[in-house]
Amino acid sequence: MRTIAVVIEYDGTDFAGFQVQRGKRTVQAELCRAVQKVTKQSVPVIGASRTDAGAHATGQVVHFRTLCRIPVERVPAALNSVLPRDIAARYAWEADETFHARYSARSRVYRYTIWNHPVRSALMERYAYRVSQPLDVEAMQQAVRYLVGKHDFAAFASEVGRYRNTVREVYSAQLQARLPLVWLRIEANGFLQGMVRAIMGTLIEIGLGKRAPETVEQLLQSGVRGDAGFNVPAHGLCLVRVNYDESTILRSEQQAGKGL
Amino acid sequence: MRTIAVVIEYDGTDFAGFQVQRGKRTVQAELCRAVQKVTKQSVPVIGASRTDAGAHATGQVVHFRTLCRIPVERVPAALNSVLPRDIAARYAWEADETFHARYSARSRVYRYTIWNHPVRSALMERYAYRVSQPLDVEAMQQAVRYLVGKHDFAAFASEVGRYRNTVREVYSAQLQARLPLVWLRIEANGFLQGMVRAIMGTLIEIGLGKRAPETVEQLLQSGVRGDAGFNVPAHGLCLVRVNYDESTILRSEQQAGKGL
Repeated sequence: MRTIAVVIEYDGTDFAGFQVQRGKRTVQAELCRAVQKVTKQSVPVIGASRTDAGAHATGQVVHFRTLCRIPVERVPAALNSVLPRDIAARYAWEADETFHARYSARSRVYRYTIWNHPVRSALMERYAYRVSQPLDVEAMQQAVRYLVGKHDFAAFASEVGRYRNTVREVYSAQLQARLPLVWLRIEANGFLQGMVRAIMGTLIEIGLGKRAPETVEQLLQSGVRGDAGFNVPAHGLCLVRVNYDESTILRSEQQAGKGL
Repeated sequence: MRTIAVVIEYDGTDFAGFQVQRGKRTVQAELCRAVQKVTKQSVPVIGASRTDAGAHATGQVVHFRTLCRIPVERVPAALNSVLPRDIAARYAWEADETFHARYSARSRVYRYTIWNHPVRSALMERYAYRVSQPLDVEAMQQAVRYLVGKHDFAAFASEVGRYRNTVREVYSAQLQARLPLVWLRIEANGFLQGMVRAIMGTLIEIGLGKRAPETVEQLLQSGVRGDAGFNVPAHGLCLVRVNYDESTILRSEQQAGKGL
């Protein structure tokens, strides 16, 4: 049995999110259908992150297990020939049998993009959330520094009850601006549901002068959800990258090299 | 009677081009409808360029004449509140009565974007034309230099018969690459129909080594359409900007300042 991992890109606008839902158009359902067409087998396709309805991805990772003997370098083109236009398979590699797109992930990188301008943009409308009032980018940058490190992010979770443990480690968080675009790039070992959107909502309130930058530090200590900012909409969100241990990937590719 | 000029942005994917066509969804028809809703008058809305079906714009300019007394700075928001999501009014100014979006234009700037990668991208699919084979960017850059200046562009026109005069002046033309993206930015006093797309098709053939860069010089001399490259599809094309004489705009805005 082979395990194939694939980097997936999608425009989330017309999807009800990543995860399969009965009667809805989802990324996972489209991928399952495409894998079935290519491999002639119906197998589960597992994603690294269950992105929200409307959220995009340039670097989602999925895996599936198959007996099909298609050369791994042909997998992206084969999938793309049957995938809809708003999903693309970008790259595939042969992984070892223990590889799991979700559980093997060492970190995930998300980007949230704001269109900071009083007038909306037709071309950014699908990919950025508009904030009309000017943002104090420096205050937001100051706030972002508190996020880095190991913290309890309960205050930023949509449903705290779902988790045994709401501690996550943020490896890096940068807020950058090339106006009218302002974006947050955040890398962590894992994210609670709604976490990036609640962080961004809080940062926006800081940027609008409604809160002090130190509010982030207080939220990390208090852990009370009601105290954090509003949840910004998902269409500004993009899963940029999922990282795995170099060693795992190299070993997988060496194995694949022997196997072929 | 006031003359109002508006900078318009659109995602051309779901439009049958700029110009009104019976029974089709066009940018001009949507703009006419929006202007009518805002001004309560049915007036023509004239665009600087009739972009093709599928082509985009970040800086199309339109004008209309009206008796409506809406302050010009409120025009973009008023139009945006009734325009569909894939069109946005970005900026408006009060122009003098001789202003004409098309005939007063001093130059237009187009960008054509290529996604130069064997694997397609879901997020660039709407905005860039994919070329799978690697392009020789240097050869293309060499070819682009021949375009600058006053030339007869008949070889690059879709319908030569339509024009009394096929001479146009290209003020600047740059080909840039940040792989996998490769794009042409070209500014001219005017463009023949299909001109940018035929130029880009020719440049791609040069980039693939099927033609020498000097072919562009020869085409400008021969003027035979059949000799130029293929017409690349419109979805890689974007009308970036329309330039008017500074003097006209300043005078218009001064007048507007007095009028308000």
